[in-house]
Amino acid sequence: MGRWEPDARGRLERAALDLYAQRGYDQTTVAEIAAHAGLTERTFFRHFTDKREVLFRGTELADMITAALAAAPGDASPFEAATAALESVSEFFADRRAHARTRQQVIDATPSLRERELIKLASLAAAIANGLRDRGAPDATANLVAEAGIAVFKVAFDHWLGAEDDRDLAAHIRSAIDELRSATRP
Amino acid sequence: MGRWEPDARGRLERAALDLYAQRGYDQTTVAEIAAHAGLTERTFFRHFTDKREVLFRGTELADMITAALAAAPGDASPFEAATAALESVSEFFADRRAHARTRQQVIDATPSLRERELIKLASLAAAIANGLRDRGAPDATANLVAEAGIAVFKVAFDHWLGAEDDRDLAAHIRSAIDELRSATRP
Repeated sequence: MGRWEPDARGRLERAALDLYAQRGYDQTTVAEIAAHAGLTERTFFRHFTDKREVLFRGTELADMITAALAAAPGDASPFEAATAALESVSEFFADRRAHARTRQQVIDATPSLRERELIKLASLAAAIANGLRDRGAPDATANLVAEAGIAVFKVAFDHWLGAEDDRDLAAHIRSAIDELRSATRP
Repeated sequence: MGRWEPDARGRLERAALDLYAQRGYDQTTVAEIAAHAGLTERTFFRHFTDKREVLFRGTELADMITAALAAAPGDASPFEAATAALESVSEFFADRRAHARTRQQVIDATPSLRERELIKLASLAAAIANGLRDRGAPDATANLVAEAGIAVFKVAFDHWLGAEDDRDLAAHIRSAIDELRSATRP
């Protein structure tokens, strides 16, 4: 392992996003990302397995959600626990909207990044379903609530990215839940 | 174009699934699939763009859903129209449960097939959202109902694959809708 590089991870993330946005994802190499961040390729690969992963934070989001599910009140319903867990990531995103917007543009323009994003969302759904099972929810409920939670999260995240006001991601999640309840009312 | 091969598409699908299930997806070549079906590689590529696509029917499902959405009663709510459209594919799957089970096992065991499956589900969500917008639903409702519909469909499809009774996919979709309403009740 080389010497410690202050915030190497964050510098590599910002450098990669800069280059992907300017030149396109396919036209950017790991060597260029490392050079742009003032770091080595070796340091890049200490933090990320590949060029795609630099736009995704490994299992960080899933871990936050798993922890929040475990910490939710014991009398919360599966849906309440799941949506509280999703709302709990709002703070993480609070000062990153500009970064998140550019990141989403790059992902939407690049099929292989779009695939990785869908895989990450499926992992989040699996993390929620597992957390709900750990709380005692039956399998069928755990899976459905997890998928519905991710549906809410995707739409809320998209609205938060596009919004011009200061409502945080958690507020957009609550709006999407209201919309879901109203839309599915018999 | 070569001579017409009776049910070439179905024969290639069954041959591919046979070989993927026996040897694994990565160990199977297009040449082997074609030979197993008694057809040529050239015929394979007239029907499918690649080895992954042979397990997915192009835009067939999305087209069925789009048509069903357009045909839904004008006074159906977006969620009613979306779920009716999803139920409409039940007949297509009616006599294919054994095939669908093997296919799912192969997909679940193969990361690149799992990616393709997630992309297909995202395309179905996009088809539903577009169909709902064409019916006059506001953007926010269309996206949320589409994602929630796909959440219901994924869970229902999984239950249908695992079930031992004769309830069809549409019945499992209706159960999942009931479960969704009950789970999201405030």
